[in-house]
Amino acid sequence: MSGKPLVPMIEYEDANPEVRAVYDDIMATRKSDWINNFWKVLAHDPAHLKRTWEALKEIMGPGALDPLTKELIYVAVSVTNGCEYCTYSHTAAARAKGMSDAQFSELIAVVGKANETNRLVNGLRPPVDPQFQPR
Amino acid sequence: MSGKPLVPMIEYEDANPEVRAVYDDIMATRKSDWINNFWKVLAHDPAHLKRTWEALKEIMGPGALDPLTKELIYVAVSVTNGCEYCTYSHTAAARAKGMSDAQFSELIAVVGKANETNRLVNGLRPPVDPQFQPR
Amino acid sequence: MSGKPLVPMIEYEDANPEVRAVYDDIMATRKSDWINNFWKVLAHDPAHLKRTWEALKEIMGPGALDPLTKELIYVAVSVTNGCEYCTYSHTAAARAKGMSDAQFSELIAVVGKANETNRLVNGLRPPVDPQFQPR
Amino acid sequence: MSGKPLVPMIEYEDANPEVRAVYDDIMATRKSDWINNFWKVLAHDPAHLKRTWEALKEIMGPGALDPLTKELIYVAVSVTNGCEYCTYSHTAAARAKGMSDAQFSELIAVVGKANETNRLVNGLRPPVDPQFQPR
Amino acid sequence: MSGKPLVPMIEYEDANPEVRAVYDDIMATRKSDWINNFWKVLAHDPAHLKRTWEALKEIMGPGALDPLTKELIYVAVSVTNGCEYCTYSHTAAARAKGMSDAQFSELIAVVGKANETNRLVNGLRPPVDPQFQPR
Amino acid sequence: MSGKPLVPMIEYEDANPEVRAVYDDIMATRKSDWINNFWKVLAHDPAHLKRTWEALKEIMGPGALDPLTKELIYVAVSVTNGCEYCTYSHTAAARAKGMSDAQFSELIAVVGKANETNRLVNGLRPPVDPQFQPR
Repeated sequence: MSGKPLVPMIEYEDANPEVRAVYDDIMATRKSDWINNFWKVLAHDPAHLKRTWEALKEIMGPGALDPLTKELIYVAVSVTNGCEYCTYSHTAAARAKGMSDAQFSELIAVVGKANETNRLVNGLRPPVDPQFQPR
Repeated sequence: MSGKPLVPMIEYEDANPEVRAVYDDIMATRKSDWINNFWKVLAHDPAHLKRTWEALKEIMGPGALDPLTKELIYVAVSVTNGCEYCTYSHTAAARAKGMSDAQFSELIAVVGKANETNRLVNGLRPPVDPQFQPR
Repeated sequence: MSGKPLVPMIEYEDANPEVRAVYDDIMATRKSDWINNFWKVLAHDPAHLKRTWEALKEIMGPGALDPLTKELIYVAVSVTNGCEYCTYSHTAAARAKGMSDAQFSELIAVVGKANETNRLVNGLRPPVDPQFQPR
Repeated sequence: MSGKPLVPMIEYEDANPEVRAVYDDIMATRKSDWINNFWKVLAHDPAHLKRTWEALKEIMGPGALDPLTKELIYVAVSVTNGCEYCTYSHTAAARAKGMSDAQFSELIAVVGKANETNRLVNGLRPPVDPQFQPR
Repeated sequence: MSGKPLVPMIEYEDANPEVRAVYDDIMATRKSDWINNFWKVLAHDPAHLKRTWEALKEIMGPGALDPLTKELIYVAVSVTNGCEYCTYSHTAAARAKGMSDAQFSELIAVVGKANETNRLVNGLRPPVDPQFQPR
Repeated sequence: MSGKPLVPMIEYEDANPEVRAVYDDIMATRKSDWINNFWKVLAHDPAHLKRTWEALKEIMGPGALDPLTKELIYVAVSVTNGCEYCTYSHTAAARAKGMSDAQFSELIAVVGKANETNRLVNGLRPPVDPQFQPR
């Protein structure tokens, strides 16, 4: 990181009530006592902060996929895109949800291999097999 | 797909023994009786075919992560990269390994959201929180 | 496009009330009488459909940036990512909001040039000038 | 940024006449008295420096789109690609051309949302609606 | 390809003199008697057509790297980005410049492997070794 | 780089025999006396380390393409993807294999131009010319 964030970070004590309500919900949901920097830079646009947090809470919560699997998927996307902050934060989140060292190694190996075969396909251009068509 | 694959596809009956051995192992491993087009375009370079298949078999087999989870990660990468063939083939593979409609919906939702927040981070550039540093 | 969508498309007449309410709002907001395929594939997950539409409506509506400028930005991202459906649909939306032929030509030229200089930077790695740091 | 640029930066006082002529034109066009690092690393290949600057000047100047709109598009591409230098430099340029805090927030929100829906499309693969075909 | 190009293609017989001059130079440079579709869609913006062709001619011509090597690099980028038209057109150009089947296979293998290890690096985040710093 | 690698780096003296064997082969193949950080983070998964190294050695060795050309292709992919570590390490490797300053400049110019025209194609969507179809 070569510099400052592109907007100042809004700390809890400087936040307006709308932002504080989101910060409180983040900490309550995560059973933690701090807010990470991602939310502090979003807080300049309180409506965007609220919408992003609420969508994320809904999407990443328990469902047909368990929260750890969702976190692994998040890391896979972040690594593919080369997003440094996202890789650190979602790897930490996956560890907090129980990801082992061996699981992390396998995750990275799968992400690497998928990025490789995606390009073998891009370069050789096989047609989609009829057997892969959805029902 | 606007055209033919960039190299001819090698069918089983036209394959040399080295390629056939790989094709046989693919079908045996997958308990299937056909070879999908990805392997047929790779087969022009038998050493590359063999290396790619063996690495994939090792990486995607059971381990600390179960095969369905690995397949979901593969789809996540393929969707992020916009690889059409890969999205069809790995979604079909995930379905064959038991992915439900609800799991597919959640997978796509997580992939979409991760791609969004990756760019919020790229645009606002928050510093990595010290709490996210690995031990 | 090599095949069918990965989930069936849900038409208005087959939609449940939750989905229909979103479809109705889309048509009312756009003053149109049809629903495009993007929403029909999302409709398998009604909560995701609703959340995506509501966020999009809020983000793309009038604000500090006018709707046409937002649509141009949407096209720029879609072209950079190589998303075919998105390029067709958002170019059509931009035209509907008044984009001229000359504006479209300039948009594409800027997107091309930005993708070029992004890679000149990636390859030569100049440090960020202190003058570019935010206040 | 982990290190030095991959080629030394050429300062004005060390530049040959061909490079100086470009530097002079950059400063005259921008009504500024300094050259940012991007040009200094390009200057090792004076023909490439000249060609890149002249194309950029032509593309980013006033036309059917105003210079601020073009700069917003440049930021959108740079953020999508994750180019740090480009994000800092073009955000600074957009601010210099009048971008407000609210416009920057909306820009980032649109870029995030476009990156999300691009992947929802990649994952669900709806066909392009006939209504979106160009005339 | 799901549809028509986003702007009509301008054929030689319908082109204005400025566009025809570029078309003539393309054919003379390539010693061919036809114009490929890329140029025909660019031709709506004659200044952009001319600038793009002249830069491409200069960059892809003989220099410290031979034209075939440059064409291989072009394919590598196009495959990494998943650009279908570009992959077909630059693979054809590389074949015309002498690329053998074996060279094409190796090119694709290198591109695949680079895309894989790029993501292993993104996921594990090793620091840049001091030995890799440029002199 | 904002922090520590996501797994500890395994130094030669702390490596188990399986990892040491790979490290020894890397140094013997490269005729060098040190191991770069990429391999040290991979070494947590010795099977993955061995597989990745052996594939890389095979793919990057002499063949129908010479090792320098392969290295240039590797840099082209790494620059397109914006992978900082990869850009530094493969540029250093290319220099060690004889890449001149002029060749590096031309490489970067080609990569930039390919990334630009890839997006002009994505935005204008010309159909693939029949002449580009493979035989």
